[in-house]
Amino acid sequence: MTEGDVRAHLDALAKPRASLGRLEDIAVRLALTQGRLDPATRPRALVLFAGDHGCVADGVSAWPSAVTGMMVATILAGRATSSALAAAHGCPLRLVDVGVAGERPVAPPAFFRDARVADGTASLAHGPAMTLAQFDAAWAVGADEATRALGGGARLLIAGEMGIGNTTPAACLTALLAGIEPDAAVGRGAGADDAVMTAKRAVVAAAVARARAEADPRTAMASVGGFEIAAMAGFYASGAAGGATLLLDGYVATAAALVAEALAPGTAAAMIAGHRSAEPGHAAALAHLGLDPVLDWGMRLGEGSGALVALPLLDAAAALLTGVARLDQIGAARGD
Amino acid sequence: MTEGDVRAHLDALAKPRASLGRLEDIAVRLALTQGRLDPATRPRALVLFAGDHGCVADGVSAWPSAVTGMMVATILAGRATSSALAAAHGCPLRLVDVGVAGERPVAPPAFFRDARVADGTASLAHGPAMTLAQFDAAWAVGADEATRALGGGARLLIAGEMGIGNTTPAACLTALLAGIEPDAAVGRGAGADDAVMTAKRAVVAAAVARARAEADPRTAMASVGGFEIAAMAGFYASGAAGGATLLLDGYVATAAALVAEALAPGTAAAMIAGHRSAEPGHAAALAHLGLDPVLDWGMRLGEGSGALVALPLLDAAAALLTGVARLDQIGAARGD
Repeated sequence: MTEGDVRAHLDALAKPRASLGRLEDIAVRLALTQGRLDPATRPRALVLFAGDHGCVADGVSAWPSAVTGMMVATILAGRATSSALAAAHGCPLRLVDVGVAGERPVAPPAFFRDARVADGTASLAHGPAMTLAQFDAAWAVGADEATRALGGGARLLIAGEMGIGNTTPAACLTALLAGIEPDAAVGRGAGADDAVMTAKRAVVAAAVARARAEADPRTAMASVGGFEIAAMAGFYASGAAGGATLLLDGYVATAAALVAEALAPGTAAAMIAGHRSAEPGHAAALAHLGLDPVLDWGMRLGEGSGALVALPLLDAAAALLTGVARLDQIGAARGD
Repeated sequence: MTEGDVRAHLDALAKPRASLGRLEDIAVRLALTQGRLDPATRPRALVLFAGDHGCVADGVSAWPSAVTGMMVATILAGRATSSALAAAHGCPLRLVDVGVAGERPVAPPAFFRDARVADGTASLAHGPAMTLAQFDAAWAVGADEATRALGGGARLLIAGEMGIGNTTPAACLTALLAGIEPDAAVGRGAGADDAVMTAKRAVVAAAVARARAEADPRTAMASVGGFEIAAMAGFYASGAAGGATLLLDGYVATAAALVAEALAPGTAAAMIAGHRSAEPGHAAALAHLGLDPVLDWGMRLGEGSGALVALPLLDAAAALLTGVARLDQIGAARGD
């Protein structure tokens, strides 16, 4: 199926040609990710992967690592931004601890999974963030989550993350995989001030230099990655292999998408970028994947929130493709 | 309640400050339209007003008037674009014939109302489109629909329209009320070619000149209006008086919003512009009302479709305002 097939379908509907503008472009992309004129956005699934980052001790974040655990608890209580948006748009949510450093939740709800690979990564400021075995373990957790969602019938998958400090590995991976300079990949994340930005730039520059000197791509990615990022990459690769549409969130999610496309080429064909974030490196990451974001709203929260904001726009695109009569069915001839 | 109150509420939530970018601006606007920090987008109601236009006989449209009735039938069958989008986003839909020229539907469903003021307007190319009594009758139909929706608890109202030729009265009203030149108010509507555009420009220029010479504002508006536009204006005025948020669709809906604000000043304070349409005069109309559109996607379909595409973005804004914990509730101190 080609873009032309989808455009021809849209042009036959009982409405002026191309009269839904950008929504029709999104409908085309959605149809192509599923290879059909009647793509579905339901069932869908959001899986949030949580992990901590050793480099937070090196001053790269405005927030302490302990906030990761607090936000895990907030998500478990259904009171995080992602909880509110997922409920608003009818998207089931799961939360997977793939490498948080703090205490484990006591008596968590059924949508929580403990799949902790380690209590946070080592600091990528001083050496590899993780071993190859840890990278593979985190990837497998994500892949398993995608398989589980697909088994439940999911046609659209969202990966989100919670991990204080994770725009630092995201910046490293974006520099490494999208081929931009480390400084261009570093942004203020969750609110870095100038002092934090100075530390973050130095950490990213050194880590990217080390990763670029690594001969094996997977080892290089593991060296500057995060557990939740590796899990998201595995989630994307398996989700795409299973035929689902992948709706991307922001900078960290797109870094994981770069990893997925590097290790499982072709995964990007299943992707739709929910938004372009306020992080300065995001545009280059999206361009590398050939993605045109649905929204450009200056969002930078993570937790899958940007993808969740964009989700109902894909619902609208699917409704347009599947729920509207053709002009010839209503007895009219084209006037335009 | 001020914008500052809403920003302070958003800044206290368990997320980085301002990290949802544009969605936070929409949340502010939504809160202000309802004067509360916990605005609601449910229950909501979409009312489509259908009418025909005598000026179609003067060559202003790419489509014949008969298509209005065909689209009414398509909406009644649940197979129009608005039907599909309303279903996708859980928005009840009503259809009101306020002035269609063709046959009346046989055994229509309960969501249809026959409130026909006349079988289409007279041509505004040759004289007043309607009498003042007809204008008032159409306005009253719309006002009654808003009262009915408010009685059902509606907190958010959408008016949509179906009426071949209605970008011509919309252009006249925009020139008249937003103070732009007639040529700047004329666009291709549902697909006018160059010959149709020439006719449309001439008709609009003459009608606006006639309306501008009219001393009484209401008589001037009636002279270049449409039944569905007058009904939408009454709908907006009553909806705003009842405390509901008004989510605007495109060019024709915004022309009705201009009429409502002219005759019931203050109505615009309840409005949120769903989108900026492809019609060239729409930006001036929105600016006159002080509105910043949620989407700028080149849509130009009508039927409430652009408002329906934007609707779940307001749902997301409401969820953000009401469903997220404060940072102090989760035990964290602000890092940003």
